[in-house]
Amino acid sequence: MKNAADTLEALEIAYDARIISAHRTPERMMNFAKGARAEGFKVIIAGAGGAAHLPGMTASMTTLPVFGVPVQSKTMSGQDSLLSIVQMPAGIPVGTLAIGKAGAVNAALLAAAVLALSDEEIADRLDEWRERQSAAVAEYPMDDQ
Amino acid sequence: MKNAADTLEALEIAYDARIISAHRTPERMMNFAKGARAEGFKVIIAGAGGAAHLPGMTASMTTLPVFGVPVQSKTMSGQDSLLSIVQMPAGIPVGTLAIGKAGAVNAALLAAAVLALSDEEIADRLDEWRERQSAAVAEYPMDDQ
Amino acid sequence: MKNAADTLEALEIAYDARIISAHRTPERMMNFAKGARAEGFKVIIAGAGGAAHLPGMTASMTTLPVFGVPVQSKTMSGQDSLLSIVQMPAGIPVGTLAIGKAGAVNAALLAAAVLALSDEEIADRLDEWRERQSAAVAEYPMDDQ
Amino acid sequence: MKNAADTLEALEIAYDARIISAHRTPERMMNFAKGARAEGFKVIIAGAGGAAHLPGMTASMTTLPVFGVPVQSKTMSGQDSLLSIVQMPAGIPVGTLAIGKAGAVNAALLAAAVLALSDEEIADRLDEWRERQSAAVAEYPMDDQ
Amino acid sequence: MKNAADTLEALEIAYDARIISAHRTPERMMNFAKGARAEGFKVIIAGAGGAAHLPGMTASMTTLPVFGVPVQSKTMSGQDSLLSIVQMPAGIPVGTLAIGKAGAVNAALLAAAVLALSDEEIADRLDEWRERQSAAVAEYPMDDQ
Amino acid sequence: MKNAADTLEALEIAYDARIISAHRTPERMMNFAKGARAEGFKVIIAGAGGAAHLPGMTASMTTLPVFGVPVQSKTMSGQDSLLSIVQMPAGIPVGTLAIGKAGAVNAALLAAAVLALSDEEIADRLDEWRERQSAAVAEYPMDDQ
Amino acid sequence: MKNAADTLEALEIAYDARIISAHRTPERMMNFAKGARAEGFKVIIAGAGGAAHLPGMTASMTTLPVFGVPVQSKTMSGQDSLLSIVQMPAGIPVGTLAIGKAGAVNAALLAAAVLALSDEEIADRLDEWRERQSAAVAEYPMDDQ
Amino acid sequence: MKNAADTLEALEIAYDARIISAHRTPERMMNFAKGARAEGFKVIIAGAGGAAHLPGMTASMTTLPVFGVPVQSKTMSGQDSLLSIVQMPAGIPVGTLAIGKAGAVNAALLAAAVLALSDEEIADRLDEWRERQSAAVAEYPMDDQ
Repeated sequence: MKNAADTLEALEIAYDARIISAHRTPERMMNFAKGARAEGFKVIIAGAGGAAHLPGMTASMTTLPVFGVPVQSKTMSGQDSLLSIVQMPAGIPVGTLAIGKAGAVNAALLAAAVLALSDEEIADRLDEWRERQSAAVAEYPMDDQ
Repeated sequence: MKNAADTLEALEIAYDARIISAHRTPERMMNFAKGARAEGFKVIIAGAGGAAHLPGMTASMTTLPVFGVPVQSKTMSGQDSLLSIVQMPAGIPVGTLAIGKAGAVNAALLAAAVLALSDEEIADRLDEWRERQSAAVAEYPMDDQ
Repeated sequence: MKNAADTLEALEIAYDARIISAHRTPERMMNFAKGARAEGFKVIIAGAGGAAHLPGMTASMTTLPVFGVPVQSKTMSGQDSLLSIVQMPAGIPVGTLAIGKAGAVNAALLAAAVLALSDEEIADRLDEWRERQSAAVAEYPMDDQ
Repeated sequence: MKNAADTLEALEIAYDARIISAHRTPERMMNFAKGARAEGFKVIIAGAGGAAHLPGMTASMTTLPVFGVPVQSKTMSGQDSLLSIVQMPAGIPVGTLAIGKAGAVNAALLAAAVLALSDEEIADRLDEWRERQSAAVAEYPMDDQ
Repeated sequence: MKNAADTLEALEIAYDARIISAHRTPERMMNFAKGARAEGFKVIIAGAGGAAHLPGMTASMTTLPVFGVPVQSKTMSGQDSLLSIVQMPAGIPVGTLAIGKAGAVNAALLAAAVLALSDEEIADRLDEWRERQSAAVAEYPMDDQ
Repeated sequence: MKNAADTLEALEIAYDARIISAHRTPERMMNFAKGARAEGFKVIIAGAGGAAHLPGMTASMTTLPVFGVPVQSKTMSGQDSLLSIVQMPAGIPVGTLAIGKAGAVNAALLAAAVLALSDEEIADRLDEWRERQSAAVAEYPMDDQ
Repeated sequence: MKNAADTLEALEIAYDARIISAHRTPERMMNFAKGARAEGFKVIIAGAGGAAHLPGMTASMTTLPVFGVPVQSKTMSGQDSLLSIVQMPAGIPVGTLAIGKAGAVNAALLAAAVLALSDEEIADRLDEWRERQSAAVAEYPMDDQ
Repeated sequence: MKNAADTLEALEIAYDARIISAHRTPERMMNFAKGARAEGFKVIIAGAGGAAHLPGMTASMTTLPVFGVPVQSKTMSGQDSLLSIVQMPAGIPVGTLAIGKAGAVNAALLAAAVLALSDEEIADRLDEWRERQSAAVAEYPMDDQ
């Protein structure tokens, strides 16, 4: 999830990182999820692996947007994480990103896109970030990968 | 889950059936899981489908044995349910049964096996149930399936 | 995708439904994606099946939040749709929902959660919707499913 | 399976570890399974990989609770092991845990939960183990994983 | 498995069809497997579904060739059956055929091929069967399927 | 994709290698795809991984033959890449090759086969390449792999 | 495969449809594949299901472009067909289309794209076909699907 | 496939190892398959990976028993190999073994089991091999794996 934090920092978006385990600290998860809106959170990014219940359970206890990142699990390469997060029943949404590092980066970008709807400065920084990304793609291969 | 109830009834084991949704009624789930031991429950059978969080979340809030039944989901035939239930991290166990009806029957039989450890009458009824099952298998096919 | 529209209507959220095929109408897709922010769109919900390129391609041409719904494909039950939508590379996020009807409903709810961040009335209607949903879950089974 | 043994030792639960192969020592398996209850066993934990038949065949010859651990196989990462263990037909239950090390730890914890139903001391040690586990989760990341 | 029987009859090969469940009648399975060679069996065809243990367990108790047919299971279309049968550990072979009807027909044809090695008449009938099959394929489509 | 370039060079087929990302440089992709026929391209080979949209989107904007190579992705070994490329809807074809290096080589060979239809010299070089390949297969193993 | 024939007819491209089974008529397959170029064929479309060997074996005996269509198999929905066709080793290419009907239509369109490289009339008809397809997509949903 | 050869040698069974590629040397495959019975072969073991056509195509041109070994492929761990070999259509059987080394060993053991039907010495050596295997399994773990 460090990639999510790094991306938020690159976009100069304030965030609060906490360790919460749906299974080992269910109380902590509930307290966080129920209080997140009142604490001033706008968007929640939750990463989890295997039987990954953190994003969905958090989403069940808040109406803030929740984005889930399937961590790459050891035995199933994150396919269990992905299905545990994305296949939510109608009623409780989790916006799910790709497995692993790409998903962590993109969760931060998607959070930025949400915040940018009501914050012109974030919108500008996000636009610049995207333009720099496009400009960084070379036209021709130097040595092909 | 009706198959689990029917099997418990066939074994004359008292049970209490409740509707709990991890995502739609998280409070109800927490209250049930935390209070189950004090209420006198011995074993919990939880069935769920898709991003199936009920068995694992229940297990995170009780030390009673929890058995999970992956319900056959519409789009993925229960493969998402299975992985969401069985791939629990070290520390919080869920004894997982087969997808669908077979799993529901077997969750009841496994609960009976647990209760039979300290209840001779249940042990006897379970033995009889199993013997009747074996005896019901014909020796030769009448019309092959 | 009708389920997404119905849910938005239940939440009294204005929306504009269009038919866009990434493969059959790529020009239409580009024009829409590039112009969506200027047209006043806040959130884009894109449903697609099989080699589902619509959500990701739309996201590559806008910084609005894009939510993708994997349509249940005939031959692979939407597993191809899901992977084609969720496994986006770092840089271009698509918040992906469940395969099929549940995902369509949830895309609308997630869009509502995003809009609710800066619209108290939507926030209130979303809270009510969620409370009605929780309240609608019976305590005990009448006839088990 | 060493993780199962270590966990049982941490909980001070007596156990007997044996090497049994369903395919290479079928006689040994049968003798063990049929005699396990009379020998005084309360719960059986069986780990196996690939076409993993040990848990299910053991369960077919005893009414003791059987918990199965899918060993991570070389070619299929334990997905063959998982399906071979969990997809038992109605009538013969195997409570299945996660693939690999997490499953081995959890098989021991589930066995402890079963024994705790009629042994207050095990119940107390299990509660303590679970509490220590929850307490060991830090509140904030030092360096993110 | 009726397709296996029908194919054996078409090839005029004597066979004995029995109902044996690895899980519900383990004693019957053991008695059959251990005694099969002495009873005069040459080849064993075993069909099973889900956590399909019959072919592998039979093979563990005889050195006769065992051919396994994965029955099409309800929830996983026979993928669980296939992996439970084919992924045997080194030491105990099961020659596995296709899932479902095609596999049942082919198990009979493979048994015939084995018997044909020391029975000229079966060899001739098998050759004829195969030639008729090839000759039955039309050159041009009448109405395409 | 270097393997595709190397194979084209071995067949003395002129090519132009460019870096185009469907998601990071959508404009570049559109300009290339729409102009490729006028620029004199005959065949397009597009490699992509994960939610691989490049081959299909390119095919949606040209009627030149497009061959797609699923790059082996980190988390899913290219299964996401394969499905994202091959499962195109009726109307927009992408001829898909194997995941990874084999697919890259074969995309070049398939392009050569297409060009050979109207270029005798390429046809001859392709025939020679294939004959050398067949001749290079030893009759007996020296040390088995 | 009727969809491939219908599409070729819509594009006024001459074709010859034959029934060839890699497994039931291997001689017919060899004779066809080896003689196809001399017979005047330009492109070969081969559809097959299950352990689908026809496209790859045909490609091994000709240097004509071969396009493979994975037929939707009964037990595995064409996933076996797809992998059997697309995962060819380096050296023998098969351009693989989608599973089922979409793949059959697209095989014809891809063949047309290849032929169009040296046939202006086919090129024009293919362009028209594609334009009609794009034009047929409505702007707004009448009743959502 | 070296494991198959080693196992045959351990059982003192004569064999002939040849390199045949279905795709790179189709002529060699045909000549071998059609002539194998006349050459005196009794059983054919064929190993192949990816789009693995060798076992099935060989089986289509002989009525000798053919056993197939799915080689562990790089990108899909042999799952493509397995499905390409095992999912044969009704009419042409291939007895399929496990993916990789275990399958190679077992193909040799299954061939031995077939030959043992008419060769008492092979039968004895196979029985001894199996007994040694069972005896080699320790009763108790020294250090657990």
